[in-house]
Amino acid sequence: MSGLFSWLIRRGLPLVPKPIVGRVAKRYVAGETLEHALSTIEQLARDGAMATMDLLGEEVRERPKALAAADEYERMLDAIAERKLVANISVKLSALGLKIDERFCSENLDRIAAAARRHGNFVRVDMEDASTTDATLRLYREMQARHGNLGVVFQAYMRRTLSDIAALPETGANVRLCKGIYVEPRAIAFKAYETVRLNFLQALEKLFERGIYVGIATHDEHLVCGALGLIDRYRVPRERYEFQMLLGVEPELRRILLAEGHRLRVYVPYGRDWYPYSTRRLRENPEVAKHVVRAFLAGRA
Amino acid sequence: MSGLFSWLIRRGLPLVPKPIVGRVAKRYVAGETLEHALSTIEQLARDGAMATMDLLGEEVRERPKALAAADEYERMLDAIAERKLVANISVKLSALGLKIDERFCSENLDRIAAAARRHGNFVRVDMEDASTTDATLRLYREMQARHGNLGVVFQAYMRRTLSDIAALPETGANVRLCKGIYVEPRAIAFKAYETVRLNFLQALEKLFERGIYVGIATHDEHLVCGALGLIDRYRVPRERYEFQMLLGVEPELRRILLAEGHRLRVYVPYGRDWYPYSTRRLRENPEVAKHVVRAFLAGRA
Repeated sequence: MSGLFSWLIRRGLPLVPKPIVGRVAKRYVAGETLEHALSTIEQLARDGAMATMDLLGEEVRERPKALAAADEYERMLDAIAERKLVANISVKLSALGLKIDERFCSENLDRIAAAARRHGNFVRVDMEDASTTDATLRLYREMQARHGNLGVVFQAYMRRTLSDIAALPETGANVRLCKGIYVEPRAIAFKAYETVRLNFLQALEKLFERGIYVGIATHDEHLVCGALGLIDRYRVPRERYEFQMLLGVEPELRRILLAEGHRLRVYVPYGRDWYPYSTRRLRENPEVAKHVVRAFLAGRA
Repeated sequence: MSGLFSWLIRRGLPLVPKPIVGRVAKRYVAGETLEHALSTIEQLARDGAMATMDLLGEEVRERPKALAAADEYERMLDAIAERKLVANISVKLSALGLKIDERFCSENLDRIAAAARRHGNFVRVDMEDASTTDATLRLYREMQARHGNLGVVFQAYMRRTLSDIAALPETGANVRLCKGIYVEPRAIAFKAYETVRLNFLQALEKLFERGIYVGIATHDEHLVCGALGLIDRYRVPRERYEFQMLLGVEPELRRILLAEGHRLRVYVPYGRDWYPYSTRRLRENPEVAKHVVRAFLAGRA
């Protein structure tokens, strides 16, 4: 049964019972409220980790929901400043109305970036599935030109990533590099595990060669090892890169990197819309689901 | 049964029957006496291979044993000179009393290095488990400053290896690079096979970049291929590197590299204390154990 279950998760089919995903979410999500997220960040800070906050919720189809999300990001930025946390924010443009209207989304992002700038803070514009890539890069460029405090995300599985890196200006760019987690067709994405790893290291080398600030977002120790080799070869100063990991994933590797003196930022999502995010995390790591299902069937969860 | 057996070996548990390990040792060890080792070296020389000699025995707890080992290394150096063999020596500091007293160990190493210098010969200071790394590097640096004819060993599985290479002076350094065979915790060592390979090539590239003489100690043809690529890219002259392999492992690859004109050195250990060394070899290659066990059970060994 667990083989079929893993297969279902990998295929991204929405057949995983919601209570199961809910149990899984507890591991990856800080809680339902801003307050939960702030206290998680304070805990991470005690271990020496920085944070990036995100409000769960994506693919928003109604304007009021997108406006409410933008309001919440402003509250986050206020709270970060007030509590003097070492944290910035990550936004998904589909949660700010990208699928409703690109102009409307741009106004929401503009408002958030302006608020971040008032606080001397930074906005990471997350990358979603390939249907949003061009619009995301357009809005990132537009707002970065206006505010100068935004960063972008490139996914190593995308065949276009090396060209997208080449198109970046060298000054002021700030890139998060991750493998990519959406299900994309072969025509635009590398599919094999080892190939995505190879392209991750190729992209990272290109970023370092160009002197661009990188958030190295991975829990794959093989890529961490390759990244450490590139940091060494290009003599990248500690303040020109950071490692990035997701809440609930690989805390041991996180501690090892912090102990070695690298800077590390944890992605701390919160909110009520934990289902799609947790389903993607499950697809990435079906082992977690097996444990949860076993505990669930045994009446322990 | 052979699955359990392999598992026991991998876990490093001392439950492999000594007669089995004894049969295995025949493959990896030249014999019990200096004379056995010298005739093995003469045989290897006929195939064009150089040698490095080592007296088996480690984790010595009594001073007389360590002093006797140092005496034996002096006899080796005399015999190498007398027979005009292309051979040097490898020493393990735990066999020279490192666990008894670092000063005592240093005096023994000093005596051996002085003897090697009189003969115009070279001493490889082997690397053991992580509890000895710092002391080994300290004694290597001290004796190298005094005699100038010592070399060190770096293990690709250690997370510190790139920094250790960076700390070497460029002139006069001579490094053996191997994967590493001891069981080390994740906090200090890369654990995954592919990751250790990646770090091996990263470390090798850094050594070549810095112009440091390298003994490329591996039987992994993937790493041999990567090393050949780096030798080509950095135009490393033949006399600035050598391949290194263990007696009894991959004689075919050894012949291939020699036929291609590379210099190659075989590690030739001898002595009565073959058990710990052979157990590590077994852990590295449980296949050998299976063959031996089968032959043993069939009454052929």
